[in-house]
Amino acid sequence: MSIVEIPIAISARHVHLCHLTLEKLFGAGYRLRSRTALSQPGQFAAEETVTLVGPRGRLEHVRVIGPPRDADQIELSRSDEIALGIDAPLRVSGDLDGTPGIRVVGPSGEIGLHHGVVTPARHIHMSPQDAERLQVRDRQAVNVAVDSDGRDLIFGDVVVRVSPAYRLELHLDTDEANAAGVCHGSTARIVHITLEGASGSAAATRPR
Amino acid sequence: MSIVEIPIAISARHVHLCHLTLEKLFGAGYRLRSRTALSQPGQFAAEETVTLVGPRGRLEHVRVIGPPRDADQIELSRSDEIALGIDAPLRVSGDLDGTPGIRVVGPSGEIGLHHGVVTPARHIHMSPQDAERLQVRDRQAVNVAVDSDGRDLIFGDVVVRVSPAYRLELHLDTDEANAAGVCHGSTARIVHITLEGASGSAAATRPR
Repeated sequence: MSIVEIPIAISARHVHLCHLTLEKLFGAGYRLRSRTALSQPGQFAAEETVTLVGPRGRLEHVRVIGPPRDADQIELSRSDEIALGIDAPLRVSGDLDGTPGIRVVGPSGEIGLHHGVVTPARHIHMSPQDAERLQVRDRQAVNVAVDSDGRDLIFGDVVVRVSPAYRLELHLDTDEANAAGVCHGSTARIVHITLEGASGSAAATRPR
Repeated sequence: MSIVEIPIAISARHVHLCHLTLEKLFGAGYRLRSRTALSQPGQFAAEETVTLVGPRGRLEHVRVIGPPRDADQIELSRSDEIALGIDAPLRVSGDLDGTPGIRVVGPSGEIGLHHGVVTPARHIHMSPQDAERLQVRDRQAVNVAVDSDGRDLIFGDVVVRVSPAYRLELHLDTDEANAAGVCHGSTARIVHITLEGASGSAAATRPR
């Protein structure tokens, strides 16, 4: 396997909104304004932010990501969830069955979502060409090594997502990025690991 | 090497105060009241909490750990630091040279500390007997594998701290615990790893 440096993108807490929720929070016919283009083609961080209100606390200035989607999806780190007092499962994007809801407040209205809050599962976006080069396939779980100053770390359970629309990038949430001591612009590598001293642990069965 | 399950303790943000600071914040002659005994002998989470005020935000209800120490030490996760707007270095306990300060508010007064804020370096407390059993030595950096539901992970740069006063325990901050999907009561194992696919990375040189 050739050595490929995978750029790291850190996803801070953010929300994807459907058209209906967008209008409820920002007004009828509202259109998101792009603030920054994101690395995945067509996606952008919007000028707009919302406030999230949980049983224990609130988080203000939470960025909206555009364009609007078919379903509302609120992506939080576990640290965010602890601050808000909610417990959301680890999910890949779009898998929202059985997820908890949250109260979302915008400048023109608010809405109590019944579900849609997830902790994003760490994943690598890549094109079919990258997948071939890296010898991995869609939905495969891989190990990814990060080499940082004092917080070296190997992430297991990193899900590969392959699509012609994707650009090669490892997506971590802020807890994960902080635990690994990395920032935007850092890189990571897919690795095969052999463990000694962990027999009986599922970790020892990797690569899988 | 025998397989030893190391209990994990998660350190949420907390402060160690010296007598002088304690009196400034809580009043002359004040004595901390123990709320919960901690696993390291003699240490306790106090009933008392303080508020931390940074350039960007504030954190309330931050637990004081007793007994008082010779120097003030404020231990935060990187997520906490981002919320407060400060940037503290990764340090082992007691190494406070060149660390930033912070404003600390108590019920009877407040103080602007000139230094003392650190991001705690992940570490394992153990007795000399445990060190012999695990074949490691004081200050050695080891790799530690955690097997969780969907967030398996191997921490590098875990510092071994050996003292007859210590009980075997891996200390992680909340970012690290969240990134690994672990909670109080989870366990970890010291592992030796061989990497394939990461040549050129410092990670490939382990074990060290």
